[in-house]
Amino acid sequence: MNRVLNTSQFDKLIVQEVAPRDGLQIEPTWVETADKIALINALSTAGFTRIEGGSFVSPKAIPALRDGEAVFQQIERQPGVIYVALIPNLKGAERALASRADELNLVMSASQTHNRANMRMSCESSLVAFGDIVRHVKGSGVLLNGSIATAFGCPFEGKIDEDRVIGIVDTYREMGIEGITLADTTGMANPRQVTRLVTRVLERLPAAALTLHFHNTRGLGLANVLAAYEAGARRFDAALGGLGGCPFAPGASGNICTEDLVNMCDEMGIPTGIDLEKLIALSRGLPALLGHDVPGQLAKAGRNCDLHPVPEYVLQIR
Amino acid sequence: MNRVLNTSQFDKLIVQEVAPRDGLQIEPTWVETADKIALINALSTAGFTRIEGGSFVSPKAIPALRDGEAVFQQIERQPGVIYVALIPNLKGAERALASRADELNLVMSASQTHNRANMRMSCESSLVAFGDIVRHVKGSGVLLNGSIATAFGCPFEGKIDEDRVIGIVDTYREMGIEGITLADTTGMANPRQVTRLVTRVLERLPAAALTLHFHNTRGLGLANVLAAYEAGARRFDAALGGLGGCPFAPGASGNICTEDLVNMCDEMGIPTGIDLEKLIALSRGLPALLGHDVPGQLAKAGRNCDLHPVPEYVLQIR
Repeated sequence: MNRVLNTSQFDKLIVQEVAPRDGLQIEPTWVETADKIALINALSTAGFTRIEGGSFVSPKAIPALRDGEAVFQQIERQPGVIYVALIPNLKGAERALASRADELNLVMSASQTHNRANMRMSCESSLVAFGDIVRHVKGSGVLLNGSIATAFGCPFEGKIDEDRVIGIVDTYREMGIEGITLADTTGMANPRQVTRLVTRVLERLPAAALTLHFHNTRGLGLANVLAAYEAGARRFDAALGGLGGCPFAPGASGNICTEDLVNMCDEMGIPTGIDLEKLIALSRGLPALLGHDVPGQLAKAGRNCDLHPVPEYVLQIR
Repeated sequence: MNRVLNTSQFDKLIVQEVAPRDGLQIEPTWVETADKIALINALSTAGFTRIEGGSFVSPKAIPALRDGEAVFQQIERQPGVIYVALIPNLKGAERALASRADELNLVMSASQTHNRANMRMSCESSLVAFGDIVRHVKGSGVLLNGSIATAFGCPFEGKIDEDRVIGIVDTYREMGIEGITLADTTGMANPRQVTRLVTRVLERLPAAALTLHFHNTRGLGLANVLAAYEAGARRFDAALGGLGGCPFAPGASGNICTEDLVNMCDEMGIPTGIDLEKLIALSRGLPALLGHDVPGQLAKAGRNCDLHPVPEYVLQIR
């Protein structure tokens, strides 16, 4: 924490909102296309510069996001906001381009077993598919980001060799994928590990090209954000309400919660450009939309500055 | 995080388990005396060196803990474990001494309004009462700890002047209260503030005399622990399952969760001496005891090393 303590002015922390994609994809309740669009439109005016709006995967694989085209075609795009789509293969890339996604996010797991479980193919097959996508997208002006899932641990294989993660970073960059996301898919990262891996990755690419994607599965999400920020990372995924989660940890938290993260930044004096009051109002609407409570804390507790009235009996104590 | 990164061997982090006191005190369900004793006995063999076992306050004020005498008299004391009791006044101290508490924990809020709401008296009246307790306890061999509630913020008053907190630390020490707890009663602390205040306090007393008491009300509990640890603090309160909470933040998390904290330490290589498997088993018994889910994450997610079996379909992918 020494760097934070000694810094009088902080760099901006960029939050990429992922609730419309990573948040909604495991929801059992169908969210109407109009509600998805309304959510993205509201997020677009809350100060985000990046929103992951959906994915173009097989509707059989992720039925909750089967309306990707309609969502991307009908949202009200705000100038300065990059709308990202998650893509598993060339067909998905073609659909995303046709729907005017600004950036394609390609995902492969560092863990061979997790990639087979998640993408139903080997890591090698994923990389071949990515090569096709890069060639297809080249020259279109659409941005490319490569996510490395299970970069901090795999629920099947356990520890992931850091050199393997670094190798994938290098492979992505050599292929022409400029943005890199290190994803802690099932919340296995710890702050010490984060410091080490982020430091190594930032020796290879600028902070503007790196995103950290943490889940709060074991309660360490915001501690990991701080460790990464102090190691030089500046861009973080987060989901409104802390939506998302993992089929292997039922009842545990999902993505780090956007409003909890923005509140931490506000309290510490780290600028984000995001309107926290708007976020809280949006988050408080999620239980009605989804039919269940969400893990985020701030929407329940309120901000520090939302003071409580002094009880009557207190005023009478001398 | 630089200190953590650069340290090859970590100091021990001491966890004081507070579930039997701060955890249970707001539970609406009555927990039988035998169940409280069984919980403390189980915690006593899990590696803790400090357990806050209950409080000796008016049974009208906190009916959930009205059996403090029976609990303290019937627990099986393990050698090397300090059993702490929370005390509001001289009468409570007398009851705690008669029940063989090893340490008395006195509590006053840094916020005048919160002290009136919580203790029903002014800060000045609290200090007078503490003077009586110190005189009564002197020479008995019983340890004294002074907690400063709302040290990082007050739900009624908002920001708390750090100089005021430092002043209370000095007053406690001058009175002969050796141990000091800085309590973030309603989860308003942020890591930057924690670094600053802990650094100042550790200029005045040794780390062995200081405890940090964080709540996870706004999701920042473990990030605050890390900030405090890096600033030199070594002792932390935590509650099994993340029990506890605040009447002003319904639905929000309570104390930082013991098993989530111990898991963070295990993963980072910070020794605690606590048996995490035992903790998880105990935590998983809480919902049946209390009739509701608890906020802790690890008991739901399992440890990183608790791997999941590889699904059958994955084995068939070439």
